[in-house]
Amino acid sequence: MTDKIRVAVLGAAGRMGATTCAAVESAEGLELVARVDVGDDVATAVRESGAQVAIDFTIPAVTEANVHALLDAGVHAVVGATGWTDESRARVAEHAAQVNAGRPQGQGLGVVIAPNFGLSAVLAMQFAAKAARYFESAEVVELHHPNKVDAPSGTARHTAAAIAAARRDAGLGPMPDATEDGWEARGADVDGVRVHAVRLRGLVAHEEILLGNPGEQLVIRQDSFDRVSFMPGVLLAVREVANHPGLTVGLEHLLDLA
Amino acid sequence: MTDKIRVAVLGAAGRMGATTCAAVESAEGLELVARVDVGDDVATAVRESGAQVAIDFTIPAVTEANVHALLDAGVHAVVGATGWTDESRARVAEHAAQVNAGRPQGQGLGVVIAPNFGLSAVLAMQFAAKAARYFESAEVVELHHPNKVDAPSGTARHTAAAIAAARRDAGLGPMPDATEDGWEARGADVDGVRVHAVRLRGLVAHEEILLGNPGEQLVIRQDSFDRVSFMPGVLLAVREVANHPGLTVGLEHLLDLA
Amino acid sequence: MTDKIRVAVLGAAGRMGATTCAAVESAEGLELVARVDVGDDVATAVRESGAQVAIDFTIPAVTEANVHALLDAGVHAVVGATGWTDESRARVAEHAAQVNAGRPQGQGLGVVIAPNFGLSAVLAMQFAAKAARYFESAEVVELHHPNKVDAPSGTARHTAAAIAAARRDAGLGPMPDATEDGWEARGADVDGVRVHAVRLRGLVAHEEILLGNPGEQLVIRQDSFDRVSFMPGVLLAVREVANHPGLTVGLEHLLDLA
Amino acid sequence: MTDKIRVAVLGAAGRMGATTCAAVESAEGLELVARVDVGDDVATAVRESGAQVAIDFTIPAVTEANVHALLDAGVHAVVGATGWTDESRARVAEHAAQVNAGRPQGQGLGVVIAPNFGLSAVLAMQFAAKAARYFESAEVVELHHPNKVDAPSGTARHTAAAIAAARRDAGLGPMPDATEDGWEARGADVDGVRVHAVRLRGLVAHEEILLGNPGEQLVIRQDSFDRVSFMPGVLLAVREVANHPGLTVGLEHLLDLA
Repeated sequence: MTDKIRVAVLGAAGRMGATTCAAVESAEGLELVARVDVGDDVATAVRESGAQVAIDFTIPAVTEANVHALLDAGVHAVVGATGWTDESRARVAEHAAQVNAGRPQGQGLGVVIAPNFGLSAVLAMQFAAKAARYFESAEVVELHHPNKVDAPSGTARHTAAAIAAARRDAGLGPMPDATEDGWEARGADVDGVRVHAVRLRGLVAHEEILLGNPGEQLVIRQDSFDRVSFMPGVLLAVREVANHPGLTVGLEHLLDLA
Repeated sequence: MTDKIRVAVLGAAGRMGATTCAAVESAEGLELVARVDVGDDVATAVRESGAQVAIDFTIPAVTEANVHALLDAGVHAVVGATGWTDESRARVAEHAAQVNAGRPQGQGLGVVIAPNFGLSAVLAMQFAAKAARYFESAEVVELHHPNKVDAPSGTARHTAAAIAAARRDAGLGPMPDATEDGWEARGADVDGVRVHAVRLRGLVAHEEILLGNPGEQLVIRQDSFDRVSFMPGVLLAVREVANHPGLTVGLEHLLDLA
Repeated sequence: MTDKIRVAVLGAAGRMGATTCAAVESAEGLELVARVDVGDDVATAVRESGAQVAIDFTIPAVTEANVHALLDAGVHAVVGATGWTDESRARVAEHAAQVNAGRPQGQGLGVVIAPNFGLSAVLAMQFAAKAARYFESAEVVELHHPNKVDAPSGTARHTAAAIAAARRDAGLGPMPDATEDGWEARGADVDGVRVHAVRLRGLVAHEEILLGNPGEQLVIRQDSFDRVSFMPGVLLAVREVANHPGLTVGLEHLLDLA
Repeated sequence: MTDKIRVAVLGAAGRMGATTCAAVESAEGLELVARVDVGDDVATAVRESGAQVAIDFTIPAVTEANVHALLDAGVHAVVGATGWTDESRARVAEHAAQVNAGRPQGQGLGVVIAPNFGLSAVLAMQFAAKAARYFESAEVVELHHPNKVDAPSGTARHTAAAIAAARRDAGLGPMPDATEDGWEARGADVDGVRVHAVRLRGLVAHEEILLGNPGEQLVIRQDSFDRVSFMPGVLLAVREVANHPGLTVGLEHLLDLA
């Protein structure tokens, strides 16, 4: 008989945290053992509950401290909070390496930090990057609700950068583009890939990658309609984190796409 | 028994002209009686052939003179050539009015000048304009082959302008848009409507209009894959031009959309 | 100074009713004066509240009786409840005619029964019907969540029937279709128009109409992500019902699409 | 200095063959050395021309014999002709193994048989198969011109079968589907995956794979507008065939998607 994985949720009272608690409770093979929020001591909460994995959907001000506390407490971490920098990630990687050096072989602690837990978004980006070397042209259109203050979205930037890197690796030059007048309609230039941002009432978060060759087109589109869309990715990370000791950045490294 | 409409094609040796000749020849109720091109005298050609309607797919340098010659010869004109200005259209309208004043009631000559004979393009624009007043948000994305030198396309500009006019008429204010950073990704501003231009190898000419309200979206998309797509619109104009004496600008005025 | 329209909501405790109450409360020019539900007497409730327009989002068992009570009470009705038949609609039309015969000219009561208050859905259907006569081919794809028990959706059936009627009126014959093997992949036949039903977790209610000619395609797509999408249509009906005395079936008759 | 690859085209007078000849002639690093057609002896033609790779776009009646002749002549084969069976492929695999047993290590002859040389089609199928295990729902919509006699398309069948296999491997059960009435609108059942076929004038060959989870959707779409779209795949196979001794069925095995 397989024991259930015991899970704590940090930031349990927030919107993502509450959605996550509900998802853990109804997921097969997982058991919600602690809801931790402002005012609770993370180390105490995870120790007393016997949590094996903690999911952090807190805020930039506290997420890094939470992860260090989880590593000291011997708990795997799955992190969806934002605000991470190269420096904060490096500190966590180093801390995890130190902790794991003192643990038995095959039992290292894992920390998964994912900017996006949406499977459709992560897969769209991966597929776009893999396909990019086989097409002359590639552009990205992201579409969001009109309350979004930044453009283009972080996901679209990452996608464009991944496309640009794949083209460079394959030795492809600049894309064909005869535009002389009207560059302002041609979107933002991210590493040579054009990125367009649509803002429309009614939409949530969507991305479309268009790839073109003579006589053919490949379009990869993903739609996120609701924050519940992140739950399959969160649950997958909870189930996989113990198989990935040390720091892993990006849900794509937990997927089997070979 | 109904007689066939006798049709002349001006610019018959060009790509659009040749496609048009083939379309007229295979169309029910039409008869191709003259292929006119560089070096031919338009007046002589239409008179000798007994043409009732002439289709002009020539070049900016000669199209206006052709239409005046057709009016003098008593022939209806359907014009797909580009390069028309407000002034040249005004001269044709005046000339047609003069000619029609001397003709029997109900037998006035018609001139149809259409910037776009694509039914899907014309309908997309009309529907977008009609729908615009009922939505909070509207944006236009046009997609073309990468050899196009201007952005956004004329069709997209016209569509955006029609959406803007419909919103003004309905008393709608500016669309919601919280963008603070990254305006270069938000496309060109055409009368307050954002227009995005994608350039992709493999595409021909495509336009997508997105309209959004809380919880819903309406998308109107049209694809032009080939110049044969203009033929249904050209043939419709040939059949309808005699019912529209004087100058008509735009295929939409020949459609029954009420 | 314009007085606000006083509005009652019947079925106020249901999901659509509650959403409607919130929408009326935040709408400019409208005032919510009564929330009526099971156990309340409709006639008394609207009389005491001074309601001018009542919105009925109740159940098939009571909606017709509600509308008759509203007509007797001198209140306009906007009806979103389902379960109406030709017979129940005919009884309401007759009742409204009797009532209006006794009212001053220009002050007749209106009853608007709408199977669908989604503006994008109603507009998609209207545009598809108007465009149909200009295309050789037309098919409908509807996409819904996988809990839906019937296929294709009522909206898709209505859309296909409207396309078929428009084609008949224009004298068009059957669409081109060389299919010999594999008819089960070709969807349902609704008056000669093929309708396909997709069921996919994550979707809500969506419809796509595809129209094709040689070398071109027109696609009209609508997405309903959430029941708030019905509110703009409901509010539009509340504002317009007094201008449409007697029975009106379908939101499209309140739209200005000419 | 790198020598150009010397290429022969069999079936050079056919439509695909002619397009292929043109593509080889304008491709960097390739040299067209023989156009072979009905009446020519394949063995003689490739020997006299010194061809290293032959592309076969002939007809079912002769393609297998051509490939055996090429193997005997020591020429790599890239095959786009149709009509292959499990038996004919097995014979070619065995013949290739015999021939390669007598050739120096690393210089084995390769035969690439591809049902589809469209990169966008092949990638769409691969991505759909890889993504399938991560989604609750998956359906396939293929869209073609109305002269196609079979439905659904072979590509759509293969895609659905690949999705079904991936779901089985991941231990997923049947997809959610509450349909009670109207199964004829739900498309064909291919290994438990619903496949819908749209036939529309103006279209060529298109496929859309929809994958759904709670709150999210991933759509992979490919459009083939023209037979030139097969050329990048054909040229890729010509360049790669020497690195794949023996029989390879499917362009996907030549792509780097890891």
